[in-house]
Amino acid sequence: MDLYGKDLLTTQEWSKAELEIVLDLAAKMKRDRFSEKYANILKNKTFLMFFYNPSVRTRQSFECAATELGGHAQFLEPKAMRLKTATTAGETVEDAAKVMSRYAAGLGIRILEDQIGAYGEGDNLLREYAYWCDIPVISMAHDKYHPCQGLADIMGWSEWFGKGPGKGVDPEVLRGKKLLVIWGHGALARSWSSVQEALLIGSRFGMDVTLAYPEGYDLDPMVISQAKQNCVENGRTFVITHDMQEGYQGAHVVYSRHWMSPQAYQNGEFLKKQEIEKALQYPQWICDAEKMKLTDNAIFTHPMPIDRGHEVTDEVASGPRSCIYDVAENRLHVQKAIMALTMGGL
Amino acid sequence: MDLYGKDLLTTQEWSKAELEIVLDLAAKMKRDRFSEKYANILKNKTFLMFFYNPSVRTRQSFECAATELGGHAQFLEPKAMRLKTATTAGETVEDAAKVMSRYAAGLGIRILEDQIGAYGEGDNLLREYAYWCDIPVISMAHDKYHPCQGLADIMGWSEWFGKGPGKGVDPEVLRGKKLLVIWGHGALARSWSSVQEALLIGSRFGMDVTLAYPEGYDLDPMVISQAKQNCVENGRTFVITHDMQEGYQGAHVVYSRHWMSPQAYQNGEFLKKQEIEKALQYPQWICDAEKMKLTDNAIFTHPMPIDRGHEVTDEVASGPRSCIYDVAENRLHVQKAIMALTMGGL
Amino acid sequence: MDLYGKDLLTTQEWSKAELEIVLDLAAKMKRDRFSEKYANILKNKTFLMFFYNPSVRTRQSFECAATELGGHAQFLEPKAMRLKTATTAGETVEDAAKVMSRYAAGLGIRILEDQIGAYGEGDNLLREYAYWCDIPVISMAHDKYHPCQGLADIMGWSEWFGKGPGKGVDPEVLRGKKLLVIWGHGALARSWSSVQEALLIGSRFGMDVTLAYPEGYDLDPMVISQAKQNCVENGRTFVITHDMQEGYQGAHVVYSRHWMSPQAYQNGEFLKKQEIEKALQYPQWICDAEKMKLTDNAIFTHPMPIDRGHEVTDEVASGPRSCIYDVAENRLHVQKAIMALTMGGL
Repeated sequence: MDLYGKDLLTTQEWSKAELEIVLDLAAKMKRDRFSEKYANILKNKTFLMFFYNPSVRTRQSFECAATELGGHAQFLEPKAMRLKTATTAGETVEDAAKVMSRYAAGLGIRILEDQIGAYGEGDNLLREYAYWCDIPVISMAHDKYHPCQGLADIMGWSEWFGKGPGKGVDPEVLRGKKLLVIWGHGALARSWSSVQEALLIGSRFGMDVTLAYPEGYDLDPMVISQAKQNCVENGRTFVITHDMQEGYQGAHVVYSRHWMSPQAYQNGEFLKKQEIEKALQYPQWICDAEKMKLTDNAIFTHPMPIDRGHEVTDEVASGPRSCIYDVAENRLHVQKAIMALTMGGL
Repeated sequence: MDLYGKDLLTTQEWSKAELEIVLDLAAKMKRDRFSEKYANILKNKTFLMFFYNPSVRTRQSFECAATELGGHAQFLEPKAMRLKTATTAGETVEDAAKVMSRYAAGLGIRILEDQIGAYGEGDNLLREYAYWCDIPVISMAHDKYHPCQGLADIMGWSEWFGKGPGKGVDPEVLRGKKLLVIWGHGALARSWSSVQEALLIGSRFGMDVTLAYPEGYDLDPMVISQAKQNCVENGRTFVITHDMQEGYQGAHVVYSRHWMSPQAYQNGEFLKKQEIEKALQYPQWICDAEKMKLTDNAIFTHPMPIDRGHEVTDEVASGPRSCIYDVAENRLHVQKAIMALTMGGL
Repeated sequence: MDLYGKDLLTTQEWSKAELEIVLDLAAKMKRDRFSEKYANILKNKTFLMFFYNPSVRTRQSFECAATELGGHAQFLEPKAMRLKTATTAGETVEDAAKVMSRYAAGLGIRILEDQIGAYGEGDNLLREYAYWCDIPVISMAHDKYHPCQGLADIMGWSEWFGKGPGKGVDPEVLRGKKLLVIWGHGALARSWSSVQEALLIGSRFGMDVTLAYPEGYDLDPMVISQAKQNCVENGRTFVITHDMQEGYQGAHVVYSRHWMSPQAYQNGEFLKKQEIEKALQYPQWICDAEKMKLTDNAIFTHPMPIDRGHEVTDEVASGPRSCIYDVAENRLHVQKAIMALTMGGL
């Protein structure tokens, strides 16, 4: 199986065997982080990073990943790129992509929230780059998907239900575990990318999935339908509820995270302020110690950055069953594995 | 011949033999891109990049070039540099240059268009840096010149009229070929740097040069005079015309590119809006398939980014005689060669 | 003595023996700059740089230092980091620090002047990061201290009073020399960090210290008290004067630099404009050749960037007794030594 040159826009478009190769290599790279084996895989090679939106975790983890593989990640902000837009002259994606393919080993793109005018535009842009590029295009989170986060989630949860962080990854331990993805209120209007990816990859790996949120916070119906189908294929259940209690009951993994409503984009505008006002009307939608008692000793997970006090209490986020830092660390390892496989020819 | 420590502000100030050394090394580096021979030439060394103006190609290609030589290009925006200006306190170029010479192996500067108040100011700044620096100063495009683009042009055209991209560079194949540099209308008010460099280096390498533009779009008379003199020395012709037909007739290389008028700067201001309005009054000044039929099966070249639909039609820019991506790729190779020779002691 | 993992917020918090190890290694690294010995100390490792404030010297010297040790310094501007502040939702320092500790080998932070609302806030932030980070936190200049500048100062002065730049460092040559730290007027409202660090480290290494400034420009009383105590322990004198003549008399090292007054911050605001207006009322507070005649053939030093014509005349700054470029160069070497010792396990 050769992943060289392959785009990664969502884990849903990679086979389970391909995802397992990534997880396996990521586990080895975590165990033996600075081994000579991995030190020069991208030597003299460049990974271009287009950040339409800023990011903490993603910037740091991708740039560190390239460095740990002996290569270099170039940080680019498209505002400095004179790209053609609907209203301004500039370069076409075709031209930009074709030239970048001559210079670089791969291209990462992050675009979501206020950098798009309607849900789906980010995904379209990534697919346009992927169409014209001869090098792999990797999503660094866009409006629909966040495959690197999804892989880091599965890796972290597998470690916690397996032998522990850093001691290997066997995602089979997740089979039959109940994943609760639950909306949290909050003062940031967040993209659907991380939660949708979690639903997709959790269901791929045989988890029972429950999605809980207040009325009015539906996610992308196509993604929901794919996640349901994944559950069917694995003989597992997929449940949507608006009842928090039902959600927490018996859960093994609790993923409490804010996301914007389907009304967030109107006439090409991102209505951040209205979204935040609306979300703050549901203060009861927070993950706390009392609700966690309903679970089957669940671990708490989150893609970070956490909006503490809104999405989750400090007690849970910093508690003994919180896997957030391990999952965050895994971003580095899965991204190293993805880069090594798709750009380094490993 | 030792190029170590040598500044590169325009190809006109380097001897033909020196330029040929660059082209020869660039061709070898293209053929054998990731060879161990080149992998550590700038190991542990820094190339500082001052981007007064943003850029697509230049940023990517210089930063990739340093990475491919085992070094690192530092991306610096002078707005973050507290330099002294006419109206604000800050550091002098003398002080900045002398300290950078202690830290780095070389310094690249890009300054043009809206970052200057009059044509020539950018060139003056580069010469001031070059005066105080003990390390080579390389133009990454400034108001007058763009030497790396000129070298990439010659390399690409030589490949197309020779054995093909990546198969070696013999610029002698360009001798007696007709280079048409022709103004294109457009919605960007562009610097004279690329076209002036093309006139200079094309005439150095024995091409017949025709420069075509509507009345009112004269370039720098000193540069024109140098290009004419180059043609005289090579026994070739240099023609200026305002007649498109005459320009295209029998051309071998067509370089259609917008540039600003000599009125673009007034009282220290860059009148971008007025320039764009004026330029859009010449919609017939576009390179299209019909005009290309007048040529001797010419190749189409452009330094990119292209303003498609203004400077050239999609049919020509993406057609079988377009060398744009090869020329763009060559930016990487010539810059690697320049850095290796001036900073790496090769 | 093992410095691995140790924070560096001010030299005052490191033992003299620890500082001497840094200076000794820095001298070796300067002598043998690109030796294989140092070429891979940080290979595949990342140093994160948080620039709340921009900087010339610091950015260049830290990023070069990481490159020269074979690693990579990641340039991060916190405005792109969605950190929690008093008024906006975002990530806590705890969360940011714990994740960075998983990715990187060290963290540098620069915060002062207009990025804080009261003197001491920057120091508090660095200490909060240092508390939560498992990796060393290095000050890249903050409102109170600038340890890397202090070490570069001592290294440069030692070279000038010893065998000369690049010929080794024996700080014992400074014992009993008179250091004059003197306020200069100027059009920038500058932090106390560099001058306070100079007072602290100069007094640690047995210099007689004189601090001279117009009434109204007192520095941090706690720092002054520490510097006095350092002098007492070394049997040396510490003098504060408002008389320029007294300051220059018999000095060996003259450090003329502007700093803001204790009134610079009011109600959480940095009153830059008022500070500049106030400072410009003291045009006689400039280091010039006539005043330098009062000294014992003193060297002139400055952390740069220099506000020439305000803090010092060109004649002195560019004169034969100016050590400014050697000190600036030493920033690179001491920072390489600090990184190698605290992050590279040397």
